[in-house]
Amino acid sequence: MSEVHAARRARLRARCSSAGSVAALVSRPANVRYLAGSAPAQAVLLVGHSGGDVLVGHWDPAGDPAGPRPADDDGLRRVALEGDTDPAVTAVALAAEGGAEAVAVEEHHLTVARHRALAAGAPGLRLTDLDCAVERQRLVKDEDEIAALRVAAEITDRALGELLESILVGRTERHLALELERRLVDHGADGPAFPTSVATGSHSGLAGHRPSDRRVEEGDFLTVRLGARFRGYRCQIGRTFVIGTSPADWQIELYEVVFAAQRAAREALAPGTEYRAVDRAAREVLAAAGHGTALGPVTGHGVGLEIGEDPRLAPAAMGRLGPCVPVTVEPGVHLPGRGGVRIDDTLVVRSPADGGPELLTITTKELLAL
Amino acid sequence: MSEVHAARRARLRARCSSAGSVAALVSRPANVRYLAGSAPAQAVLLVGHSGGDVLVGHWDPAGDPAGPRPADDDGLRRVALEGDTDPAVTAVALAAEGGAEAVAVEEHHLTVARHRALAAGAPGLRLTDLDCAVERQRLVKDEDEIAALRVAAEITDRALGELLESILVGRTERHLALELERRLVDHGADGPAFPTSVATGSHSGLAGHRPSDRRVEEGDFLTVRLGARFRGYRCQIGRTFVIGTSPADWQIELYEVVFAAQRAAREALAPGTEYRAVDRAAREVLAAAGHGTALGPVTGHGVGLEIGEDPRLAPAAMGRLGPCVPVTVEPGVHLPGRGGVRIDDTLVVRSPADGGPELLTITTKELLAL
Repeated sequence: MSEVHAARRARLRARCSSAGSVAALVSRPANVRYLAGSAPAQAVLLVGHSGGDVLVGHWDPAGDPAGPRPADDDGLRRVALEGDTDPAVTAVALAAEGGAEAVAVEEHHLTVARHRALAAGAPGLRLTDLDCAVERQRLVKDEDEIAALRVAAEITDRALGELLESILVGRTERHLALELERRLVDHGADGPAFPTSVATGSHSGLAGHRPSDRRVEEGDFLTVRLGARFRGYRCQIGRTFVIGTSPADWQIELYEVVFAAQRAAREALAPGTEYRAVDRAAREVLAAAGHGTALGPVTGHGVGLEIGEDPRLAPAAMGRLGPCVPVTVEPGVHLPGRGGVRIDDTLVVRSPADGGPELLTITTKELLAL
Repeated sequence: MSEVHAARRARLRARCSSAGSVAALVSRPANVRYLAGSAPAQAVLLVGHSGGDVLVGHWDPAGDPAGPRPADDDGLRRVALEGDTDPAVTAVALAAEGGAEAVAVEEHHLTVARHRALAAGAPGLRLTDLDCAVERQRLVKDEDEIAALRVAAEITDRALGELLESILVGRTERHLALELERRLVDHGADGPAFPTSVATGSHSGLAGHRPSDRRVEEGDFLTVRLGARFRGYRCQIGRTFVIGTSPADWQIELYEVVFAAQRAAREALAPGTEYRAVDRAAREVLAAAGHGTALGPVTGHGVGLEIGEDPRLAPAAMGRLGPCVPVTVEPGVHLPGRGGVRIDDTLVVRSPADGGPELLTITTKELLAL
């Protein structure tokens, strides 16, 4: 595992030297984890230091023995701090001592106050912007990362499947959400990938709905969105069901539209396809059915160590998909006062020669009456 | 409710004008919530603008009807944005248009990248540092805030009490944590105040232990830390139990030491007492028993809209307690390989004339054998 992290750091170092910077300071937690393996909260990583890469942080002396400060034999030196010192200040001072002329920092993460402290602590050193170099590196997943996402998706499908076999009428959104999260953990997840969303009746189809005390009733649309976190990797599934024996005509019609939009976007996934083209595929289907404004800013997004990563499948997004990039495809329509439909999968982009996009979340997308 | 928020904004405006700044931009979510009531994620608040206070954010058109964009009739103007515009950039541009010479921003929150964008969007405007003005204002709670904390504590005590009546041996830390969180919600919490910690056997007593698959066994120390969130307000309780019929001598001794340290700190709580004196009271008791280094950086901290707020009850902390300041008192000792004890309460500082510190978390601190 540590060779994987060392290789990732080597790629980052190479990009930084080609850009002229001598060292890079990584501070966003998911980025630190990607490059260093486990790290204490708030730890930072200095890459390209003349003495080798350094992880600076606070390892709690009374800390969890399940996560001790590891030996430095994996090529990554660790500097443990006491008290309240900002690891970033220490790391930049180390870079200066090591003769660095400049350090590229994550300006989209460091606060103004921390940045001032870095500059004050190493006055001769130039601070530049690393920008989203690590996020871009994280875009394409290796086979171990994809394997972790597969397990996360299996756990997620199982938890959802079990819930569908239980009685739903009369239960609150909140309880169903808690139940789903418990089942994720039962089946081996580290925890949920994000707060589970359960929305029934006129709440159904709302993006980002937080579960309330509303109870499921006969005739409701019920939309559920959940995901497992496994070895740090997060996936996402969303499904819509009808409660009771037979859906109403408006429900069948709306479901077919959203299903068609989601399928169009899924089928657009291929190496070389523009991010905006995937988004457009879903948006056009919805617009043709009169729901052009329903979609929201994105049709989907990347997943990995974070549930919302590059790429964004959005109208103005620049860039093209490549193989081994996992993304969600999650369009939906909400009709105020009535409810709506959301259908959401996690897939890995693959070339047609490799079978096209690999669907990770395999729970049926047929409209089920529960 | 909106008069409360308007009054809080008026206090902030007064502090800013006395300091010379014309307007203040509040961006930290808890601070925005404190001053504006509910607000969408990422919304920012401009206070002291010539046209009146403004809340700038993205209200999702397909957003949750439970949290609609309210009317502007509470004295707070709302500006709703489309697309991906940073509300902070819009707010600063509004301030410039309104004739402000300077805007104080939260440099401990805004990233370097966002700050650059603000400056670029309003080139003639001076950006200064608001520092922790809002956090300091949040220190002393009003009676409604304390009432919310009381309810949060009652919910927390109930959830913990129910768990203690159930069978614990053989259950994993993870499952017990999930069970506690479910019960918090059952009893009316919005959700947990922070991730619940359950630590058994040699994990017990670890600060910040994340629940694992370790199962509770006879003879274990079991430490539990949890808290409810109610109307946004968060409290915290921590207790240590022995599993089985009779604790070992070392367990009784260690428990008595930590209990004495926690009691000393609780009894030190009074208006006018230095933060560092409360911390010292606990630290001295532990040191006298040979556990001087066990405590970690703080003995306790403030609670409110965030679970970790000012003040910090720490050795170098500057400042004195006042009435109506809620704090935790949470010392502990962990013996590597054996386990340990943590005892943690939430209390509200009150003058002796008002009965001394008001204990919110009333679950017994007697060492129970379960």
